[in-house]
Amino acid sequence: MNFPSKLIENAVTEISRLPGIGKKTALRLALHLLRQPEVFSEALSASILEMRQKTQYCRVCHNISDEEVCSICESHRRDRATVCVVEDIRDVLAIENTNQFQGVYHVLGGVISPIQGIGPDNLTIESLINRIGMGEIKEVILALSATMEGDTTSFYLGKRLKESGVKVSTIARGIPVGGELEFTDEVTLGRSILTRINYSQD
Amino acid sequence: MNFPSKLIENAVTEISRLPGIGKKTALRLALHLLRQPEVFSEALSASILEMRQKTQYCRVCHNISDEEVCSICESHRRDRATVCVVEDIRDVLAIENTNQFQGVYHVLGGVISPIQGIGPDNLTIESLINRIGMGEIKEVILALSATMEGDTTSFYLGKRLKESGVKVSTIARGIPVGGELEFTDEVTLGRSILTRINYSQD
Repeated sequence: MNFPSKLIENAVTEISRLPGIGKKTALRLALHLLRQPEVFSEALSASILEMRQKTQYCRVCHNISDEEVCSICESHRRDRATVCVVEDIRDVLAIENTNQFQGVYHVLGGVISPIQGIGPDNLTIESLINRIGMGEIKEVILALSATMEGDTTSFYLGKRLKESGVKVSTIARGIPVGGELEFTDEVTLGRSILTRINYSQD
Repeated sequence: MNFPSKLIENAVTEISRLPGIGKKTALRLALHLLRQPEVFSEALSASILEMRQKTQYCRVCHNISDEEVCSICESHRRDRATVCVVEDIRDVLAIENTNQFQGVYHVLGGVISPIQGIGPDNLTIESLINRIGMGEIKEVILALSATMEGDTTSFYLGKRLKESGVKVSTIARGIPVGGELEFTDEVTLGRSILTRINYSQD
């Protein structure tokens, strides 16, 4: 595309670097910004820059945080004996939205994926073992995706945490709430008989 | 959603104000930005702010421009006797990409739409009549969408420009290149017999 304005071309190029946004969508967004009051673009660009420059990873759980220690790890209302191990911040948000978990988290930063070149050393596994070594933790709940990579990571963590003496569990795999039993695939149905698989008992 | 970081929450709120982007997509984009080097977010926010603050509307054709007069109006290679009237900058880009038009443009900034409260006074129609009054323009090509609003605007402009003495034409409506005649709807097919409708001859 041949833009009449270098400034729009720059903005479109930058916006279209975002995942799932092509040149046409980027142009649509840029034209939208031009039609809005200037304060709108100012707020957008300031919030992006501030987020990128000021957020940090929580020293304890490696979740994204505004402070050195995140609000969940800092809170005295949370049960610090129970740690939920998740892949990234989106999983923390998903679990927080259920209002069913009162413990704390440990964000791995990914899952083991040989194809993408992510091994155990690229994740925050050593930090988790150090946390457990401090003695406060009684149970580790593995809440990873039900994919091959997620299962591999759960299996690896289950093995690594065996000697530590803490209880290790994974979230139940089963038929979703509202799902009909007869239409559930046999793998899920088979797994759904078990609700909470206790890794440390095998 | 309950964000663990106020900074991410702000960024997600601002990004989700963009059209077609919800909270979930905004969070995905925000997390993508956090994974990228900081320079990426810097370039993105700078380009958005710069575009919004520094672009202006060309004094002659009302297209978005970096300077007071846009590069197309400024160019000595363009035929200033032929003016193509379009709705907005996206149409300018579409026509420029065909490499078939050597004239200049006039950007209306919209089309007449009583439902959206857009009347002739909200468009740059007076400015077009002033341009024609300066005597250089010989032909006005109306290149508006083949919608009811576009046709209404073309009809209105055709009437308004009748006395000015310039030739007024609209781009041909017809079967798209590659389209099969037998599958074309009758309205399009009926129109396609005429290639260039000369408004001034009726």
